Amino acid sequence: MTPRAGIVVTGTEVLGGIISDRNGPWLSERLRGEGVELAHIMVVGDRPGDMRAALDFLAREGVDLVITSGGLGPTADDLTAEVVGAFTGRAMALDTALEERILAILQRNRASWRTYSEEALRAGNRKQAIVPAGATILEPVGTAPGLVVPPGADGGPTVVVLPGPPGELQPMWGAALATAPLQAVLARAATLEQRLMRLIGVPESELALSLEAMAQAGVALGALEITTCLRRGELEIATTFSPEAAGDYDAFVAAVRARHGDALFSADGATVDEQVAALLGGRTIAVAESCTGGLMTGRLTDRAGSSEYVLGGVVVYSNAAKTALAGVPEELIERHGAVSPEVAVALADGAIARFGAELGIGITGVAGPGGGSAEKPVGTVCLSVAEAGGARADRTVRLPGDRAMVRERSTTVVLHMLRRLLQRHG
Amino acid sequence: MTPRAGIVVTGTEVLGGIISDRNGPWLSERLRGEGVELAHIMVVGDRPGDMRAALDFLAREGVDLVITSGGLGPTADDLTAEVVGAFTGRAMALDTALEERILAILQRNRASWRTYSEEALRAGNRKQAIVPAGATILEPVGTAPGLVVPPGADGGPTVVVLPGPPGELQPMWGAALATAPLQAVLARAATLEQRLMRLIGVPESELALSLEAMAQAGVALGALEITTCLRRGELEIATTFSPEAAGDYDAFVAAVRARHGDALFSADGATVDEQVAALLGGRTIAVAESCTGGLMTGRLTDRAGSSEYVLGGVVVYSNAAKTALAGVPEELIERHGAVSPEVAVALADGAIARFGAELGIGITGVAGPGGGSAEKPVGTVCLSVAEAGGARADRTVRLPGDRAMVRERSTTVVLHMLRRLLQRHG
Repeated sequence: MTPRAGIVVTGTEVLGGIISDRNGPWLSERLRGEGVELAHIMVVGDRPGDMRAALDFLAREGVDLVITSGGLGPTADDLTAEVVGAFTGRAMALDTALEERILAILQRNRASWRTYSEEALRAGNRKQAIVPAGATILEPVGTAPGLVVPPGADGGPTVVVLPGPPGELQPMWGAALATAPLQAVLARAATLEQRLMRLIGVPESELALSLEAMAQAGVALGALEITTCLRRGELEIATTFSPEAAGDYDAFVAAVRARHGDALFSADGATVDEQVAALLGGRTIAVAESCTGGLMTGRLTDRAGSSEYVLGGVVVYSNAAKTALAGVPEELIERHGAVSPEVAVALADGAIARFGAELGIGITGVAGPGGGSAEKPVGTVCLSVAEAGGARADRTVRLPGDRAMVRERSTTVVLHMLRRLLQRHG
Repeated sequence: MTPRAGIVVTGTEVLGGIISDRNGPWLSERLRGEGVELAHIMVVGDRPGDMRAALDFLAREGVDLVITSGGLGPTADDLTAEVVGAFTGRAMALDTALEERILAILQRNRASWRTYSEEALRAGNRKQAIVPAGATILEPVGTAPGLVVPPGADGGPTVVVLPGPPGELQPMWGAALATAPLQAVLARAATLEQRLMRLIGVPESELALSLEAMAQAGVALGALEITTCLRRGELEIATTFSPEAAGDYDAFVAAVRARHGDALFSADGATVDEQVAALLGGRTIAVAESCTGGLMTGRLTDRAGSSEYVLGGVVVYSNAAKTALAGVPEELIERHGAVSPEVAVALADGAIARFGAELGIGITGVAGPGGGSAEKPVGTVCLSVAEAGGARADRTVRLPGDRAMVRERSTTVVLHMLRRLLQRHG
């Protein structure tokens, strides 16, 4: 029987929409990798009653494992350890050895704080070292220790208590995995496979019909849990299945390929970013971008090691900068306007010339909310990708959505243009 | 009595960590604006049993309002309307007029799909027009209609059913607000104020002590719900209170200012991005960045209207590009290394010179994971901000975290340097 889990993310800032939760999605992927089925992610504020209600709900739902994130800080609104102690029926006790270890960490970090108070550190420290009896301590990555709390006398789930900052939670997860109580839960897990296909240019309704037609044509979909999702203009098909159904999944992929071969750009879950990086094979690239304001170069350089092949980019918002930094002829801008296919082409060529790159990208458009016209409404973006002295592709699109969405989608469209160019001529 | 609400975000992709939820945080802020207290955000997969369990939990918790997002698409895994119908004890019925309106939308969009099937559109359409009896329809923004479903015969919460894509959900929320069942819930709401202070350079433990000291000194904090949160290296203090406690809040702000005046850079919730834009007052700025790879310029140009004062930027990853595009002398790079305060200064000056800007930013550093050395480990970033022929500030920092965090934090530190420079000399 596959173990089921729930995640409880605490924090009034997360609940209030002030910060967005990165821990739930991250833990979710880790659980899947361990063969645990995630039933619920719950976000609650720093009110102990609401947090307790969430834990009680998950216990009633019969989950085997609860992971909490957040609420381990030094301030009075951080109450997770206490609530989990009460939930598992365990008394709270000061772990003096832990207290000293936390203090040592704080003293090491002291120099980096501009203001500092020994008294505050001690006070914060003491609270963070009061833990439920019988819990396994996970050593602090920042200053907050995590906990693995076994079920109480009345049964119920094992609770893993982790800190809120992703930079602390993620390394601590490895330590949690090694503890005996968590190992006991995971021993019951059977691995589930999760695979992802990515398509571009197919509406979700079209795919719904394809799935029906496949089922009628005898493709065995019964053992596959298939979900589809539109994301950044791409359509993703996520499929979960037990290892015995691997053959069914392969047949499903073949059926998708037969019907939507043009659109299916990734059958192994690779992103278009990863594909472009691989297709470049070390050839150098540079960018001249206007409306995307640096995000295109930022996206290319997200990848570790990208400095090997991304030479750089110019963000040329003003017309003067387009001419001075990307070599776009002034008269071209005057004749066609700054947002025009001609200027996009000149930007791509300018990027190649200025950086001495083997490939170039040019982007110019109207991201909005202002700047649109009847002829070139908000969302109009002219895109160009080119090989130095070789193949090229140019496109003008009208993208939906607000400023942020137009900027992001523009980078996605460019990456697909680049992918096709490199696949054809690469 | 303040109404309480729960949000249920559906979708296996969200639960599985494949996409991150933007709707929970957005709805959370809207609810606060309406004076509704949010108790829980729950993320569930596309399993109808889990979704129903979430609704039942919220009903037991006594919430007055539930908002769901997602699960309204044409594929078989989209089940929200049906589950909500069963939850409120309402029969499902085809709304034929709605069916025609959806079809008209689909036909209008037809041209934009590369592949197309009339049959698929009709099939998808029919499913989306089957709604619980007695529900108020919210007209589609994309193709999925939303719903406002009044409580069933046995009471329980009013349920607002919204589509998953943020671009559809957000405009539809306005229509939902205008419906009678939602108005009936909101009529009971008293407005709660939520304010935000932002500090830089204070550890959370220090603030915890300050809060205790204030309480002892007689600052009335009892009527204020105060939560603190570290975010991107800044410390945020979020406070919720009823309008009668406005005087208490003002006294609290004064007390924070008295103790942490240096660190408190925003008492009105304004971000450092907003402050810098205001302080620039239309003066032009340009960027020459290396390790941030375009994100600094991207962050400056996030703001609508930023093309008025952001002239552009150069992303100069390679040494050759640093020289050719930002005018950094070759021998400076040879003597001090590409990551050095001297090169950061030359980049800021180069940005000013190349773009003819009034202010310039220079960034060079080691974002990792590779490229670090004993002398310049991963996280070392040299930053420079300068006025053309005027004031300047330079700083070298060692930032914690992974590649993405180092890149993001670098932009935050630069904005604070720029803020201080403009406040002092602006």
